[in-house]
Amino acid sequence: MKKVGIIGVGLMGGSLAMALKSRFRRLTICGYARSEKSLGRIKRLKIVDKVSRRLEDVVGESDIIVIALPIYASIEYLKKISPFLKRGAIVMDLGSTKELISRQAKRYLPQGIAFVGCHPLCGSEKAGAQHATRTLYRQAQCIITASRRDRATKVVAKLWQDVGARVSYLSARAHDELVSYFSHLPHILSFALTNTAPAQHKKFVPPSFKDLTRISHSPSHLWTDIFLSNRDNIIRDLDRFITALKGFRRLMRGNRRDLARFIDRTNRMTTLRP
Amino acid sequence: MKKVGIIGVGLMGGSLAMALKSRFRRLTICGYARSEKSLGRIKRLKIVDKVSRRLEDVVGESDIIVIALPIYASIEYLKKISPFLKRGAIVMDLGSTKELISRQAKRYLPQGIAFVGCHPLCGSEKAGAQHATRTLYRQAQCIITASRRDRATKVVAKLWQDVGARVSYLSARAHDELVSYFSHLPHILSFALTNTAPAQHKKFVPPSFKDLTRISHSPSHLWTDIFLSNRDNIIRDLDRFITALKGFRRLMRGNRRDLARFIDRTNRMTTLRP
Repeated sequence: MKKVGIIGVGLMGGSLAMALKSRFRRLTICGYARSEKSLGRIKRLKIVDKVSRRLEDVVGESDIIVIALPIYASIEYLKKISPFLKRGAIVMDLGSTKELISRQAKRYLPQGIAFVGCHPLCGSEKAGAQHATRTLYRQAQCIITASRRDRATKVVAKLWQDVGARVSYLSARAHDELVSYFSHLPHILSFALTNTAPAQHKKFVPPSFKDLTRISHSPSHLWTDIFLSNRDNIIRDLDRFITALKGFRRLMRGNRRDLARFIDRTNRMTTLRP
Repeated sequence: MKKVGIIGVGLMGGSLAMALKSRFRRLTICGYARSEKSLGRIKRLKIVDKVSRRLEDVVGESDIIVIALPIYASIEYLKKISPFLKRGAIVMDLGSTKELISRQAKRYLPQGIAFVGCHPLCGSEKAGAQHATRTLYRQAQCIITASRRDRATKVVAKLWQDVGARVSYLSARAHDELVSYFSHLPHILSFALTNTAPAQHKKFVPPSFKDLTRISHSPSHLWTDIFLSNRDNIIRDLDRFITALKGFRRLMRGNRRDLARFIDRTNRMTTLRP
């Protein structure tokens, strides 16, 4: 591995560049900039060895191309980079949903180019290359949604382990079902809780409320894509959750023993304890 | 103030005893124990000066009686202590809802006895006297739901300030509406999220999910009472929240611009930022 191309030098892509650079001194990392402004910014941050506005410079000769953009933009760039990919190159992404992009990669990438979908579970409400750090992926869980028997998967798994992450494997479908419940639904609840809140009484906001609404600062340019690219799973989980809330409403009108039992049962669900 | 009686020497009552004791050396604090077992336990912890299973010992001669029990038990003890209260005594409670107990205090306490409802916003998922600490109330917000012009309110406000808390005043009604949205609804969402979660995939649970489900370990003996004593406010907030989730579901089926706008608007609701 001599050259890595990064499309999307933000928090995630920038942190990966920094981590790889500190691990492999001889590696050349080339970042793509969509505008003169972002080109200047990425240069000043000194995160990558080269920055270019020409996709050909970034993708050509690269052994691995990392796409680290919001999901629908990532899909656009799958198409755009296709003409410049060298034979045997590996394309990977870092997006929060995997079924849609995996399907599109099959469709748009040329024969002989492997796509390895990745989801490192270490995002943040912060965004942008200025928050990038070479330690972001240390101890992080990274889910890979390609077959673990493929050569390309092994190369990518090694790359994640080299930057300190722990790798797990799931199908793209199982992955998207999982994140729908454990990540996307919590974000929806958090957004709704902030959105419906009475504006007064700011000084009385208790820690529990703050915990639940921390993630409601998550940026729309990422989350619109995440929600729309996982629509069916999310709508199913939302419907299940609304049914659960209606069940709780019935408990509120019922007898105290049933309500206490519900809370006790929840307390006992130790499998999910932090 | 020479003697304080504490009914319910747990996390909250025990911490108040410790804080008062470290501030006022000459104060006698007498704790009530419902059983021989808890009497032995409270004695061993050395939190109070005296422990007794006779309410008369705890309440008689006390200038202030602190009831620190789950809400419906607190109401029971309002009745039980009535015969033993000395003239001019002040009864206060530490419960998380205030309308019901304030109404019951008016009904059950004799003439000349003031009731001052208090809600210190510093609970924890931990419960029990063994977790009590004299610093629990430092910097904590304490809401008092009695008129700030009354002599008894002034005495109680001073007591909270002496142990390091900041005092605010709200009507019992405004208080219960406030905590319904900012505390009770988050607990319901947390309980429901834990309760509906698929049991597999434990190792992938992201930080966002852990933040939202931390409070789902809150104990049923407290929360059954909190929910039932604030039923009308909670059902109204639950209905509003279900409507908000249905609104989000419609956004998921609509166009991307509206969804992005919803998230942007939520991001901008800076008044609620931690």
